[in-house]
Amino acid sequence: MKYRQNGKFKRTILEADLNVASFFFLLGLISAKENIACCSFPCQNGGECLTIDVDDYKCDCYGLKFYGKNCEIPTWSQQFYEWLEPDLESVYLMATKYQYIWNIFNSLINSLTTINDRIRQSKNPQKFIKQSSNNQSLYSLILPPVPKNCPTPLGVAGFKNLPEISRVAELFKRSEFKPEPMGFNLLFATFAEHFSYMFFKTSIENGPDFTWSSQSVDLSNIYGREIYDQNILRSFNQGKLKSQIIDGEEWPPLLEKAPVKMYWPNSVPTKYRFAMGHKYFSVHPGHLMWSTLWLRQHNRLCDVLTQSYPNWGDEQLYQTSRKALNAIMSKMVLEEWLTMLSPYKLNNKLRNKNFQYQRRIFLEYKLFSHWHGLIPDHLSINNTIYTTKNFFFNPEILFKHGLPNFIESLIKQSAGRVGHHNYNPATIYVVVDAIIQGRNLRLQSYSNYCRHFGIKPPKTFLELTGDYAVAKELEELYEDVESIELFVGVMCSRREGRSLFNILQLEFGVASVLYAINSNPIASKKWWQPSTFGGEEVFNIIEKSTFQRFICNNIKGRCPRFSFKVPWWNSDYEKSFYMAEWAANRKRHDNLWFDS
Amino acid sequence: MKYRQNGKFKRTILEADLNVASFFFLLGLISAKENIACCSFPCQNGGECLTIDVDDYKCDCYGLKFYGKNCEIPTWSQQFYEWLEPDLESVYLMATKYQYIWNIFNSLINSLTTINDRIRQSKNPQKFIKQSSNNQSLYSLILPPVPKNCPTPLGVAGFKNLPEISRVAELFKRSEFKPEPMGFNLLFATFAEHFSYMFFKTSIENGPDFTWSSQSVDLSNIYGREIYDQNILRSFNQGKLKSQIIDGEEWPPLLEKAPVKMYWPNSVPTKYRFAMGHKYFSVHPGHLMWSTLWLRQHNRLCDVLTQSYPNWGDEQLYQTSRKALNAIMSKMVLEEWLTMLSPYKLNNKLRNKNFQYQRRIFLEYKLFSHWHGLIPDHLSINNTIYTTKNFFFNPEILFKHGLPNFIESLIKQSAGRVGHHNYNPATIYVVVDAIIQGRNLRLQSYSNYCRHFGIKPPKTFLELTGDYAVAKELEELYEDVESIELFVGVMCSRREGRSLFNILQLEFGVASVLYAINSNPIASKKWWQPSTFGGEEVFNIIEKSTFQRFICNNIKGRCPRFSFKVPWWNSDYEKSFYMAEWAANRKRHDNLWFDS
Repeated sequence: MKYRQNGKFKRTILEADLNVASFFFLLGLISAKENIACCSFPCQNGGECLTIDVDDYKCDCYGLKFYGKNCEIPTWSQQFYEWLEPDLESVYLMATKYQYIWNIFNSLINSLTTINDRIRQSKNPQKFIKQSSNNQSLYSLILPPVPKNCPTPLGVAGFKNLPEISRVAELFKRSEFKPEPMGFNLLFATFAEHFSYMFFKTSIENGPDFTWSSQSVDLSNIYGREIYDQNILRSFNQGKLKSQIIDGEEWPPLLEKAPVKMYWPNSVPTKYRFAMGHKYFSVHPGHLMWSTLWLRQHNRLCDVLTQSYPNWGDEQLYQTSRKALNAIMSKMVLEEWLTMLSPYKLNNKLRNKNFQYQRRIFLEYKLFSHWHGLIPDHLSINNTIYTTKNFFFNPEILFKHGLPNFIESLIKQSAGRVGHHNYNPATIYVVVDAIIQGRNLRLQSYSNYCRHFGIKPPKTFLELTGDYAVAKELEELYEDVESIELFVGVMCSRREGRSLFNILQLEFGVASVLYAINSNPIASKKWWQPSTFGGEEVFNIIEKSTFQRFICNNIKGRCPRFSFKVPWWNSDYEKSFYMAEWAANRKRHDNLWFDS
Repeated sequence: MKYRQNGKFKRTILEADLNVASFFFLLGLISAKENIACCSFPCQNGGECLTIDVDDYKCDCYGLKFYGKNCEIPTWSQQFYEWLEPDLESVYLMATKYQYIWNIFNSLINSLTTINDRIRQSKNPQKFIKQSSNNQSLYSLILPPVPKNCPTPLGVAGFKNLPEISRVAELFKRSEFKPEPMGFNLLFATFAEHFSYMFFKTSIENGPDFTWSSQSVDLSNIYGREIYDQNILRSFNQGKLKSQIIDGEEWPPLLEKAPVKMYWPNSVPTKYRFAMGHKYFSVHPGHLMWSTLWLRQHNRLCDVLTQSYPNWGDEQLYQTSRKALNAIMSKMVLEEWLTMLSPYKLNNKLRNKNFQYQRRIFLEYKLFSHWHGLIPDHLSINNTIYTTKNFFFNPEILFKHGLPNFIESLIKQSAGRVGHHNYNPATIYVVVDAIIQGRNLRLQSYSNYCRHFGIKPPKTFLELTGDYAVAKELEELYEDVESIELFVGVMCSRREGRSLFNILQLEFGVASVLYAINSNPIASKKWWQPSTFGGEEVFNIIEKSTFQRFICNNIKGRCPRFSFKVPWWNSDYEKSFYMAEWAANRKRHDNLWFDS
C-alpha cells in the first residue's frame, strides 16, 4: 500500500505546525494536547501517529518496510518491490483492456491468488474497531478517525466548519434523470438492494457502529435473523419454508401465519402483508419478488432431496437445502454479479481452496453502498406508469401484472446513474444520513482514502470531477480539494470509461464482496462437494445454476430473457452515450469561468 | 490426512454387509434404509459416505487426491507426496528428541509455517456443524457422527450396547493418587482451568452443541460476558475495572457492588462473594487468585497510560488496556504455556503474519479437556491441609494465608496424572458427563479418530494401554478394540515418554490452542505494534511479559519463584519416576493371566 505524496500534502504538514500553535494558544493546554500534531496525518505508508507533545508527534513504523520520522523512507527490499510492482492504475488498464491476455491468464493461473490479494487489500484483520473486544456486532474502519480537537474537521485542510448538510444535499438532487451509462437496469437495482440487506443491518438503537445481526453473507435475509425468527418461518414439514398458494403459485406466508417482525405500514391490506426473512423487505415489490424466488427454490430443493432420501427428517432436509441455496447464491453472485460489476476480466472462481475469514464490514463500504441514484422517478410496469412513491410499499403490483411481466419490465428499464445530481427527492434523506454518519464517525478525507489505496489523490476539483459545473459547486463548499468528505468525493468523482463506480469505490467494493462471500465457508474446497448437498443430483443443480435458470425454474409461464442490462445495451450504445454526454458537458460549461 | 488401513478395519467392512442384511431383516425397510451401508465407515482418506441403497453406498471423493469405490487409490501426485512425507510418529520423534536440530530450524525458518500447518490440521473451515447457518454459538465436530440405526452404537464393531456408564466410570476412580509424571504442579492445574473457562461455555439450556457466549480467546473471563456485564464490572473512571482494597491490596469488587451473574453458594459469607468476569469463577480460590492478578495488571496498565496521556478519556484507556492485557495473555500462553505443553521444540511465535480466523471449538477438543485428574485429594496451603471438598467455594483461604504463600504452596504441590484411575471421587461426575455427551453426540470410535489424524490405531487393548490390568478391564467392557469410545480411549491410552497426554490429544490440543489464539487478531502483524497499545512504554511491558513478571508485579511482598512444575522436578526425577512405575507395573501384573 503506497502513499503517494504530492506538493499539496507536504504543504499541509507545514501548515499544521502553524495551525497547531495558534489553536493551542486559543484553546489552552488541556483540550489541545491530544494528538494535535497528528491532525495533518504526517505518517505515511500505513505508519500510525502518536502525539508526544503539543507540537510533536511520533510515527509508529513498527513492522513496516519504511522508516524515518514519517515512515517515508523505504527499505532496500521495499524499493526493489516498488520497482517491480505496477501501480494500481496500470493494473486497472491491463486488467480491463486486454481480454485476450486475461483469457490466457485465467486458464493458467489459479485466480484465487488475485482474490486473496483483493482480500489482503481490504486489510484483514481489521484494526480500527471501536472496542477491543470480540463483539461481533461492531463494524470496523479502514482508516482511523480524524483526531479530536483538530484545527478543521478533516484535520488541517479546508474551512473551520464543514458545509451545511442541506447545501451538500443540493449536490445530489436530481434535476433530470441520468441513466446508468453501462446500461444496468432495474432488475440489477432491486437485486443490489436485496443482496446488501443481507449484511447491512445497522442498529438504530446502538448507533451507526453496530449491527443488529450477523455481518455474514449467509442468506439470513431469506431464512430470518436469529433461530427464533428462523423457526417461525419454517414449516417443520419436509424441510420446507412456510408458504401459501395464490392463483396456483407459491408465495411467502402471510404475516398472521408467520408472525416475525416486519415493517408493514397500516395502508397495506392484511392480505398483502407477507412474512419474509428481513424486516425491511416490505419496502417495495422487488424484495417480494426475489424473496419469493428464493423461497420457491428452497422448497423445490427439499422436494428433490425428499425423493432421493425418503427417510430424511425435516431438520436434515432443511439444513441441506439451506446449504445448497447458499451455494447457489454464492455461485451466481461470484460468477455473474461480481464479474459484471468488476471491470477486471477475471473468473471469480473459489472452491479450490480452504479458507475461513471472520468478517467485519467496513463502515466505509457501508457508506459507499448508498446507490440510491439507481432509483428512477417513474417505473413502467407492463405499460402502467408508477411514481417511485407509488411503487414503495405496494406488493399489489406484483399480483396485478404477474411475475413474468414484472421481471420483464424491470429488465427493460434503465436504472439511474450512481452519483451527484441524480437522487430522487424521496431518497435525499439517505444522502443526508450518509453524510451525517460520516461526520459522526469523523472519517478522513477522500484524498486520504485515495492515498491509502495507492490512488493518486486529485490536485484540483476539476481533476476530481471531470466536470466544470460540479467542480465549481464543490469548490464553493469545501475550498480545499484535500478537505472533501469521503462520501461526497466518491459520488462526485469522474468515472473511468466502462464503470459504474469510481476506481476507489470499485477496488474496495469488489474486494469487500469477495471478502464477504469468503466469510461463508460454503464455497471453500472442503464444503464444495456432492456429499455436502446430499449427493450428485443437487450438486449438479448448484454447478449449473445461473440467474437465468434461477428465474425460469421458479416462475410459472413465459420466462423472460434474463439480463442485468437493458436489452438494447451494447458497446456502441455505451460509446455514443459517453460522446453525447461529453459534448453536452462541454457546451454547457464552455462559457463558464472556472479557475482550475 | 492419511487413513492407514489395517486388517481389522477391512474385516469390519465385510462384517458390515452381513450385519446390514440381518439388521434390515429385523427392523424393516424404513428404519434400516438410512445409511446402514455407511456404518462400517468404508470411505477412506476423508471421503464422505452416502447411502445409495440398503446395502450399497457411495464414497464422495470429490476434490480429494484419491479415487476408487472407497477413495482408497491415491493419484500419482499423492503417491509422490506420501513417499516424501514422513509419518506423524517420525515427525514426533524428530521434533521431540533432537533439540539442537530444532535450534537451527527455529533460527532459520519462520515458525509460523508450522503453526499454519497445525491450524490446517484442525481442518479449517470446519464442516460438521449441526446447522448450515452462521450461528456462532454452535460447536463443530471433526468427524461426522456415527449414522443412526447402525448395528452397534459405534458402527459395526463391539457389543450391541455400550457398557453401562457406572461401569465405565469405575475405570476412572482413584484408588491411590498418581502424580503427574512431567512434574506439573497445582499452579499449572489452576491456570489450565482458569484459561479454558474463557472459551468452554457450554449452554446447559440449549444442549451440549451450544455455547452461551463467545468461543474466542479474548479474556472475556476477566472482562465479562456481554457488553451489559462488562459495563457492570467497569468503574468508568480512568479506564479501570471496579475493585476494592482489602488490607492495602486490590481485589475484585464485592458482588453487591457489581451485581453480575455469579454462582456463590449460600454458605459463602457476603464479604467473600466477589464479582468476576465468569460466573463459575466462584468454584475455588485459584480462580479468585488469577482473576485478581489480571485485574491488578489491567488497572496498572491504566495508570501507565494515564500518565502518558492525561487527556485520554475512560473509554480510550479501558479499550487500550484491554488490548494490552490480551497481548500479554497471548504472549505468555504462546511462549510459555504452549511451549511447555507441546513436546515440539518450536518457538511459538506469531506476530509476523496477518491472519484472521473465525473460530468454532471442536466438541472433541472440549471432551479431551476434562483434565480433572490433575486435582489431588488434599491440598497443603502454607502447611494447612485442605481436602478437595474444603478447598472448593472457599475464598477465605486466600486471605488467611495471603497471595504469596498461596501461590508458593500451589507451586510446591504436584498435580495428578491425567488419565484412568486417577479422578477424585468428587470429580467422577465430570467423567460421567463427558461419556454421556460423547454418546449423545454419537462420536466415532477412538480408532477412527486415530485414523483421521494419521496415527496407527491400536490393534490390541494392550497396545492401546501399555498396561495389562487396564487392558483387561477395557476388554471386558468393550470386547473389540475398534469399539472404544473416544474419551475412554484417550484417557486410557499409554503416553509417549515426556508427555502429559497421548499423541492424539497432544496433536489436536496444541493445534486447537494455537487456532484459538489466532482467533484473536491481537497477535497478528498489523495489531502488534506500539501504536495499538498507546506507545512504546506499554509495548515494552508486553514484549517483556512472562508469568514470573506477571505474578511479581501484581502481588505485594515476597515474590515466589514462578514455575508450572514442582521445584524438585528435573529430567532425572522424571526418568526415575518412569522406571519406578514401569517396575511396579510389571510386578503387580506379572502374575495375572492376560491374553494379548
